[in-house]
Amino acid sequence: MLNQDLTLDEQLAYLTKGTAEVINEVELRAKLEKSRKSGEPLTVKVGFDPTAPDLHLGHTVLIRKMKHFQDLGHRVIFLIGDFTGLIGDPTGKNRTRPAMTREEVLENAETYKAQVFKILDPEKTIVDFNSRWLGSMSSNDLIRLCAKYTLARMLERDDFSRRLNQQLPISIHELLYPLAQAYDSVALKADFELGGTDQKFNLLVGRDIQREYGLEPQVLLTVPILEGLDGVEKMSKSLHNYIGITEKPEEIYGKVMSITDLLMWRYYELLTDLTPNQIAALRGSVENGAVHPMQAKRDLAALIVTDFHSVEASVEAAEHFSRVFQQRENPEDMAEFRIAAEGGAILLAEVLSRTEFTATKSEAKRLIKQGGVSINGEKISDPMLQVDPASYPEFILKVGKRKFGKIILK
Amino acid sequence: MLNQDLTLDEQLAYLTKGTAEVINEVELRAKLEKSRKSGEPLTVKVGFDPTAPDLHLGHTVLIRKMKHFQDLGHRVIFLIGDFTGLIGDPTGKNRTRPAMTREEVLENAETYKAQVFKILDPEKTIVDFNSRWLGSMSSNDLIRLCAKYTLARMLERDDFSRRLNQQLPISIHELLYPLAQAYDSVALKADFELGGTDQKFNLLVGRDIQREYGLEPQVLLTVPILEGLDGVEKMSKSLHNYIGITEKPEEIYGKVMSITDLLMWRYYELLTDLTPNQIAALRGSVENGAVHPMQAKRDLAALIVTDFHSVEASVEAAEHFSRVFQQRENPEDMAEFRIAAEGGAILLAEVLSRTEFTATKSEAKRLIKQGGVSINGEKISDPMLQVDPASYPEFILKVGKRKFGKIILK
Repeated sequence: MLNQDLTLDEQLAYLTKGTAEVINEVELRAKLEKSRKSGEPLTVKVGFDPTAPDLHLGHTVLIRKMKHFQDLGHRVIFLIGDFTGLIGDPTGKNRTRPAMTREEVLENAETYKAQVFKILDPEKTIVDFNSRWLGSMSSNDLIRLCAKYTLARMLERDDFSRRLNQQLPISIHELLYPLAQAYDSVALKADFELGGTDQKFNLLVGRDIQREYGLEPQVLLTVPILEGLDGVEKMSKSLHNYIGITEKPEEIYGKVMSITDLLMWRYYELLTDLTPNQIAALRGSVENGAVHPMQAKRDLAALIVTDFHSVEASVEAAEHFSRVFQQRENPEDMAEFRIAAEGGAILLAEVLSRTEFTATKSEAKRLIKQGGVSINGEKISDPMLQVDPASYPEFILKVGKRKFGKIILK
Repeated sequence: MLNQDLTLDEQLAYLTKGTAEVINEVELRAKLEKSRKSGEPLTVKVGFDPTAPDLHLGHTVLIRKMKHFQDLGHRVIFLIGDFTGLIGDPTGKNRTRPAMTREEVLENAETYKAQVFKILDPEKTIVDFNSRWLGSMSSNDLIRLCAKYTLARMLERDDFSRRLNQQLPISIHELLYPLAQAYDSVALKADFELGGTDQKFNLLVGRDIQREYGLEPQVLLTVPILEGLDGVEKMSKSLHNYIGITEKPEEIYGKVMSITDLLMWRYYELLTDLTPNQIAALRGSVENGAVHPMQAKRDLAALIVTDFHSVEASVEAAEHFSRVFQQRENPEDMAEFRIAAEGGAILLAEVLSRTEFTATKSEAKRLIKQGGVSINGEKISDPMLQVDPASYPEFILKVGKRKFGKIILK
C-alpha cells in the first residue's frame, strides 16, 4: 500500500533527508509522481556483503533510508550479494576467504534479518540473493554484459586507477564484479539503488548498464559514511570505534555518551527519524542554554537503545550510566578474575593480559602508558608496575571508560 | 605413428626451420625427447578465425609448420575459434559481424578443410571447435579464469596499451578473449601452440594459464608474417597484395612471377619445403650466374602451383605465362564485353567500369592515370579519353599486368 498522505514535496523531503547525493532529483520526482498516479510501488535495491552480517550503527544509516522508502509503501529489496561469496577468492591468495556454502549464505541471511528487522518491517522486506540470476548466467551472457562497458570508464573508479598507478595487481575478474552488481539492477528492474557514498561508482555503473539493457536508469541515493566514536575515522569494526547493533543496552548507551557534542548532531541526523526541523530546534535550545548538552546526548542514547532493544532497556541503561559514569560508582555486577601470582609480585600488564580486557601484555602496557587503566580509582601510568598479592589480594580494575573488573590475586 | 627415423637434432632443425621465435628451445627438446621415449605423440594447437575461411599464401606459412609436426607423427589440432564467432560483436557496433549460426560455423569449417587439406594430411588432422568447452562454461568458471591474470599484464599487449593511451575505447569483454583462447590450451592440454608473430602475446597467455591450471606450459613456435606481392606490407586480402590458395593456376603463377628477386628467397623459405641448405645452394647458383633469377622464380611459381593444384596445372600455367607475359601475346581465351555506346563516343573509364576489371568509374580513372591500362597494346594516360564506336568498334583492353578483355562497342 502506497502512503498517499504526504504531498509529493513532502515525500521528496522525507526520502532525501540525510542523503549525501541524489542522482538525480528530476528523475526521482518523476518516478514518485508516476507511482503516485499508477498506485504501483517502486522497487528499491540495496546490496549487502554476504560475508559480514555483523552490523553496526554505520550500516543503520542505509537501513534507515530503506525504511523511509518502506514507510511510503515502496518495495524494498535487501539484496545479499552471495554470488561473489559463493565463488570465494578465486585467486586463492586470501586463505581467510574460501568459497561459502549455500548453507553459510542462508545462515548469514538469517543473522542479517535478525538485525535489520529491528529497523525494517519484516512483512514488507524482500530478501533476495543475486546468485539467483548471476549463478545461472552462461559465459556467453557474461561476455555480452562485459561488452557493454569500457575499460577506460572502469578505471575511473578511484581504487582501480590508484592501484594501477601504484603497480598493485588488479585481477581481471575484479573488473567483472561492478558489472555483475550493475546487472542486479537489470534483473530486479530497480527504480532506486541506495548505498554509501563509497559505493557511488558501482551505483552509477548500474544506471549505465540498465540503459544498455533498455531499462529506465535507476535513481541513486547515497547516504553519508557515519563517523565512528572518535568523530574522525569512519565507523568500522577493525578501527574499534563502532557500536554494534547487537551490543547490550548499557554498552550502546555508554558509547553514545562518549562522543563529542558536535558528533552528537551528526548522529541525530543520521541515526534517528527526527525531522531536520526537530533537530534544528533541539540544537537551538542547547545553544541558547535551555537544554544542557549532556541531556541532549542522553536523549540520543535513549533513542538509539530503544531502536535496537526497548524503552525499558533504555531506561535501565540510563540508570546504569548514571550510577557508573556519573556517580563514579563501580557497576553492580562486575566480572571477577582470579589470577594466579605464584612467584609473588606480578606485572599489572600481565594481570591485564589474563583478563578479557586486553589480548596481549604489550597492548596492556600501551593502555597503561596512555592512562587508560586505574586500580581502585587511581590512574596508573607506569607500564612496568608490579602488584603484590600480599598488599593487593583484591582490587577493582578499570580499563578505558567503561570496563570494570574485580581482580583476586592468589 | 611417430616418425623415429630422424635424430632428435634433425627433428629440432625440421620443426624450427623458418620459425620466427621458439619459447623455448630447452622445453621443446625435452618434450620431443619425452615423446620419443614414450612413443606418445605430442599435441599441437593452432587457432583459426571462424569468420575468414578464405586462405591466402600468408596463412600457409603456419599451415606448413603444422604439416611439419604431422610429418613427425604428432597430433595436430586445427582449432576453429567459433566461441567468439557464435557471440558475434556483443557491442552491437559492428553491423557486419552479427552472431554466426552453428550451420555457418560448420560450413566455414568445410571451406577451411577443402583448403588446408591441400597441405595437411586429412587423416591426421583433428578439426575442433572451442565452443565445445567455452560454450558450456558457467559465469562462475569464467570469473575463476579471469582471476588468474592481472590487468597490468593484459595491458602489456601492444594494441591494448596503445588504444588506452590514445583514449580509444576497449570494452571489458575484449580483455576476456585472450584468456578464453588461453583456456583452449588447458582444455586441449596442448604441448605446442603455433601462430604468427603477431599472436605472440596471446600464445604466452596460454603458457601462463596452463601453469595456473597445473599443466606443463606449452612451447610456442611463431612463424613470420609473410610479406605480400609488394614485398613491404603483410599479405592481406584488404591490401590486394595476396595470392589466394583457391586462385586459378595461371593467376598464382603470374602473381609469383611478379615479385622481386629478393622477395623470391623469402617465399622459398616460407612457402616451400626445401631445406635451408637446398635454398642456399640455389641462391648461390643464381648469384654466380649458373642459374638465371627468372628461372629460379619460375621454379618457385611451379612449386607453389603444384602445392595447390597439380603438376599438370603448373606445366600449363607455365606455358600460359610464357605466351601472355613473355611473348606479349594476347591470351587465347579472352573474355568479351559488349558495351552499348548509344550516344556515340564514350569515356574509356566508363567502358572499364562496365567490365569486371574495375568497380567504379573513379577507380578506372585512377588506373588509367597510373598507366595501368592499354588499348591494343598502347598505354593510355589520359583519364578523360573518349573512344568512338565509329573508329574503335572492337579493341583489346589490357588492365594491370595480367588482365585482358576484348571490347565490342555497339
